[in-house]
Amino acid sequence: MTQTLTVKLLTATDFAAYGDVIEVSGEPDKLINAGMCGRYHDRAKMDFSDGVAGISIFNAKGRQLPYVVDMVERHPEGSQAFIPMTQTCFLVVVADDDNGTPVNPKAFLTCKGQSVNLYRGVWHGVLAPLYDAGQYAVVDRIGAGANLEEFYFETPFVIDAVPA
Amino acid sequence: MTQTLTVKLLTATDFAAYGDVIEVSGEPDKLINAGMCGRYHDRAKMDFSDGVAGISIFNAKGRQLPYVVDMVERHPEGSQAFIPMTQTCFLVVVADDDNGTPVNPKAFLTCKGQSVNLYRGVWHGVLAPLYDAGQYAVVDRIGAGANLEEFYFETPFVIDAVPA
Repeated sequence: MTQTLTVKLLTATDFAAYGDVIEVSGEPDKLINAGMCGRYHDRAKMDFSDGVAGISIFNAKGRQLPYVVDMVERHPEGSQAFIPMTQTCFLVVVADDDNGTPVNPKAFLTCKGQSVNLYRGVWHGVLAPLYDAGQYAVVDRIGAGANLEEFYFETPFVIDAVPA
Repeated sequence: MTQTLTVKLLTATDFAAYGDVIEVSGEPDKLINAGMCGRYHDRAKMDFSDGVAGISIFNAKGRQLPYVVDMVERHPEGSQAFIPMTQTCFLVVVADDDNGTPVNPKAFLTCKGQSVNLYRGVWHGVLAPLYDAGQYAVVDRIGAGANLEEFYFETPFVIDAVPA
């Protein structure tokens, strides 16, 4: 028994409650390097209970359709940004929280050049590059103590298709 | 009048005095997501006098050879990481410091998949994607106050060629 999860193309508006979409859009905040470079400034609301921001690399295998979402996780102590270093699109599953239980899951597909910063404590699926493997720079909290909660759905969700 | 600057392929060893090379190399520190993802953990020594880490995007035009290096800059208040979101190689120019003057410049060419984190206060050239334009996620200090010093060389350096 599964439930179907439909996928939308990722937009900053739809994602606003869950995190930042970090992308080149519109005019840069500042032109630097004698006009050769546009800076889109400070586009992620990073938020850590303690510890500091660190940069790691996630080297992830590709996922195929149909893709089963049987669990989500969250990091109560800090936000987590995923920056694709390869031109790989990836599935982003998020869910609302109802007293410690993830509800109302939503699925998004990133376009090339889009990064996401998941807000602290937001339920989300695992990193899921679609089709091909992908490398991601991850900016998240480096610090002591547990920072992971997992939740397994009684009835898993399935993604059968993605927008063209 | 110019001086020739030779370019080496970037390696962590050669770059150790100036910053971190953030890349997938060897075994991951941890396998996560049921073995589908390798985490290369906390690969950048970020260092800020105050303020916090932020994520910005730099959207930079490509540079062509011969490439003139007429200035370097440094950020006394914080480290600065450049993570290519496009598979663009870029030139990294760094220099030693001699009582406030940059000396002994060195030039490196990154390979696809390599990011760099420049240590706080290290003299460096501007972001210079080679040939094609590139987009970079930049993790640096977000905070108040001046954080930029520039130095113009009396005799500029020129990069005529890069390693194959």
